[in-house]
Amino acid sequence: MGTITIKDIAKRCQVGVSTVSRAMNDHPDINPKTKKKILKVIEESGYVPDNSARNLKRVDARAVAVLIKGIGNTFFNQFIEILEQECQKRHYSCVIQRVEEYENEIDVALQIAREKKLRGVVFLGGNFSHSGEEFGRLKIPYVLSTINSGEGNNRIASVSVDDFKESYKMTDYLLGLGHKRIAIITARKEDESIGKLRLLGYQRALSDQGIQFDEDLVCYMKMHVDRYSYRSGYKITKELLSRKTPFTALYATSDTLAVGAIRALFEAGIHVPDDCSVAGFDGMEAGEFCIPGITTIRQPAKEIARATADLLFSMIDKKEEPKRVIFDGELIIRESTAISRIKSSEEE
Amino acid sequence: MGTITIKDIAKRCQVGVSTVSRAMNDHPDINPKTKKKILKVIEESGYVPDNSARNLKRVDARAVAVLIKGIGNTFFNQFIEILEQECQKRHYSCVIQRVEEYENEIDVALQIAREKKLRGVVFLGGNFSHSGEEFGRLKIPYVLSTINSGEGNNRIASVSVDDFKESYKMTDYLLGLGHKRIAIITARKEDESIGKLRLLGYQRALSDQGIQFDEDLVCYMKMHVDRYSYRSGYKITKELLSRKTPFTALYATSDTLAVGAIRALFEAGIHVPDDCSVAGFDGMEAGEFCIPGITTIRQPAKEIARATADLLFSMIDKKEEPKRVIFDGELIIRESTAISRIKSSEEE
Repeated sequence: MGTITIKDIAKRCQVGVSTVSRAMNDHPDINPKTKKKILKVIEESGYVPDNSARNLKRVDARAVAVLIKGIGNTFFNQFIEILEQECQKRHYSCVIQRVEEYENEIDVALQIAREKKLRGVVFLGGNFSHSGEEFGRLKIPYVLSTINSGEGNNRIASVSVDDFKESYKMTDYLLGLGHKRIAIITARKEDESIGKLRLLGYQRALSDQGIQFDEDLVCYMKMHVDRYSYRSGYKITKELLSRKTPFTALYATSDTLAVGAIRALFEAGIHVPDDCSVAGFDGMEAGEFCIPGITTIRQPAKEIARATADLLFSMIDKKEEPKRVIFDGELIIRESTAISRIKSSEEE
Repeated sequence: MGTITIKDIAKRCQVGVSTVSRAMNDHPDINPKTKKKILKVIEESGYVPDNSARNLKRVDARAVAVLIKGIGNTFFNQFIEILEQECQKRHYSCVIQRVEEYENEIDVALQIAREKKLRGVVFLGGNFSHSGEEFGRLKIPYVLSTINSGEGNNRIASVSVDDFKESYKMTDYLLGLGHKRIAIITARKEDESIGKLRLLGYQRALSDQGIQFDEDLVCYMKMHVDRYSYRSGYKITKELLSRKTPFTALYATSDTLAVGAIRALFEAGIHVPDDCSVAGFDGMEAGEFCIPGITTIRQPAKEIARATADLLFSMIDKKEEPKRVIFDGELIIRESTAISRIKSSEEE
């Protein structure tokens, strides 16, 4: 039996070789039915793709780096996958580099740029309070991904949701359910990035409804704990419960935090959503499948990752100037939130 | 105000600089109380570590590569973190490379070895049915991590649990609860690696208890779905339910699969563990915090990751020959498993 080639697969499926390639690389430009058929034929045939084409691309020394703060945050896994694919398509290699919580990501980027032939950098996660001047040290194109560079910073390229607006949306949804005592788990006090924006959105939504902001309901994450983790959500909620401050809803600012929070409430005999509503943020797979399913703001992760790559490569090719790209988040209502008991008893 | 240095932190804490460094790098050789105190002082002081030492290490061209199949598997996140730390300690840089499901990881390793000054390779995940000869193409030291190279392959270095034995342990535990119809979600039929070993352990445990193996209770994963994902567990369980084959327990061979399975059962009105027990494998954070908590086999991830690095670097330094290192898994009983109703009614 001769070796099966991509041409054989294309022939069997009566499509072109490029279509087979699109099917294998999960490219969006393909009819889902065709894709399914091709993948089935590949599976049945035992076809093993010839890696030489891909390997050729790897030999090419052009590279971009993806710097990740908080690799413990599984939200980033899907980003890495797509960013790698987008790099491959463009014949760039992709360097993944984890950055420690206490490290300055710009220093790390400069260092890698010196070592490798870097053409561009993607910053994923992290606390982006760096000034324009500090970014000015980086002489190659870079894009902040899932990080909003802020309205005053149009010269810094970023692709993200509007964390302020989306956080407002979630808080407003909880207020609409009749919750007036809404606790929030947010980033460290020193955070000048998405954590701060989400807290500000929460505060604005409260004040727009004439509800006094209560510092007792705010839980800040601690440094040196894996911040957006299940365990972090669990520990912080335990601490919140020990404060004895009443609340009927808890807005955790990530889905992992929300899952941990629900476990802490469960252990305290507090049922979600009957006794307390819990909301997350991000739209991760875990929040979709756990019980109760987590009400959340879905960030369009794939779209953000693709737009990040598009923007970075157009900047590398000098076709575009840095700009801010904002995606809409989507409020997804699942099982972890419900009408406040206080409201429903008032209405009886 | 002058810049705070690591020496200032050490002075304030009345410890040496190396102790501060150990605290920051999550090194095991430190008194937990001392560590806590140091991290508190760091947090309060606003100390930002000087990256020059770390950067110096990065300039050094010696590198090892970590090749990951299935980056969607969040189980590997903690491995990457530790492997990177171990590399840093030894002044090696660490290249993280995702490998596509259909790619031959040895080809990818050879390619990267040509491009970079690689001294060693870690293979994480994947279907390791490669022959010794195929591995022979790799002329630098390598270690299979979380993958058992098999008893006949002592010349291939590996660090893992004994998947056969651990899977036997879990199945035997479920049998002990009185379950006789135990469904299993396992890897693709073609899998010659951990998936196969876990299936064999399950089969042996059944036969040791005189229970006939029933192919109807076996669910194989599909190619081209993110295999050890929540969604995969959900979809496969839906498919299992549609078979109308009775079962009182479901052994998903990862915690993520188990969470997805519980959601599918929940939607079908089947309560876990009252109507059906569900068990996982791996010992991931998600399984600890979700509701019900997942009964699982905990793989000592940190220990496996550290031992992987230790073995790889001793091989690089020619201090050790390739060997198989086996860690014990730990059966962790949580809320997702219970005595079979059939058994409890028999005993009444």
